[in-house]
Amino acid sequence: MDEPLNLVLFSGTDDKLQAAAVLAAGAAALGKPVNIFLQYWALDAFRADKIGQDHGLAPEAGVAGRAAVDALARAGQAPWAETLRQAKDLGAVDIQACSVSMDLLKLDSIDLDPLVDGVEGVTAFYLNAGGGQVVFI
Amino acid sequence: MDEPLNLVLFSGTDDKLQAAAVLAAGAAALGKPVNIFLQYWALDAFRADKIGQDHGLAPEAGVAGRAAVDALARAGQAPWAETLRQAKDLGAVDIQACSVSMDLLKLDSIDLDPLVDGVEGVTAFYLNAGGGQVVFI
Amino acid sequence: MDEPLNLVLFSGTDDKLQAAAVLAAGAAALGKPVNIFLQYWALDAFRADKIGQDHGLAPEAGVAGRAAVDALARAGQAPWAETLRQAKDLGAVDIQACSVSMDLLKLDSIDLDPLVDGVEGVTAFYLNAGGGQVVFI
Repeated sequence: MDEPLNLVLFSGTDDKLQAAAVLAAGAAALGKPVNIFLQYWALDAFRADKIGQDHGLAPEAGVAGRAAVDALARAGQAPWAETLRQAKDLGAVDIQACSVSMDLLKLDSIDLDPLVDGVEGVTAFYLNAGGGQVVFI
Repeated sequence: MDEPLNLVLFSGTDDKLQAAAVLAAGAAALGKPVNIFLQYWALDAFRADKIGQDHGLAPEAGVAGRAAVDALARAGQAPWAETLRQAKDLGAVDIQACSVSMDLLKLDSIDLDPLVDGVEGVTAFYLNAGGGQVVFI
Repeated sequence: MDEPLNLVLFSGTDDKLQAAAVLAAGAAALGKPVNIFLQYWALDAFRADKIGQDHGLAPEAGVAGRAAVDALARAGQAPWAETLRQAKDLGAVDIQACSVSMDLLKLDSIDLDPLVDGVEGVTAFYLNAGGGQVVFI
């Protein structure tokens, strides 16, 4: 339990980000450090001007999946960004933007939601990951 | 080899589920315990009334990919559910539905195929995973 | 750092393959052995007659994502195949095609780009992976 859980987030759809947030919050609740590394479309979803918006679902969700997600939201399920905020209150959750993806999307740190703690390269990500599990979402 | 392999299944398309089943069966054949945790659209694919149906492929498969998968099925490749059944005969393969996704899809245990051994939360998943590899599919 | 990083590549879109190549190159630069196992649509992207082509992006990329990727390519970003070639020069990066996926796509070794070092089954993949991290992309 001492080794961190390391999540590489690539996808920016709300279903995958919600799955990632649940995995992060569960690990934090168990006292496990969590490192999150944001690439590509997941990074785009953490832009300050976009984080609260609808980011769509995986294509396979279909009409029934869309309806199920909307019903759960109406029933009070916290959005993924809120789940991540709670995970940060529970434990050691560090969220870093991938520097290569920052260039791709022409973003500066100031463009990102305050949930994001900084920008780093892939080498720094590995050094922080140590021997812990690496999960690509 | 003592540590379990832990597969978080999110996607419910037949190509990803087949890839997951092959990874599970290979680990089971080597004597490695396998824990499978079903979320979102992967859980939906394990519904008793849907498990034998066509669940589509990733969008990138295209027409040529569809034809290749269909040809292999006609040549006798076992469907992923059958590969998982065989993996359970080979070794210690435990399949659990994620409780949050059960709520999302409004499912009860009785709605799931008998391949699924139970329902658990993300904390239980981590405790069973121990220090083993965690793979998100 | 002695344990290898083990990447199972399933998706064959250029954005996921670029993310995978960056993860492989970063690990190689740190002296970590890297094992890459090619399945399904990722294997298809390593065909000698296709590796240099456009393999599309994840559906969620959209028009803005497509434009961002194209702009970075025009600005000189190396394609993922080139990043993998550089990673092989930097460290121990071994790329193997999954034998089941070779059958699916009706490929022979000669059909693959020289970046691919061989063909193996999932059991050999696990034995080479040892206790290292397994990442599915």
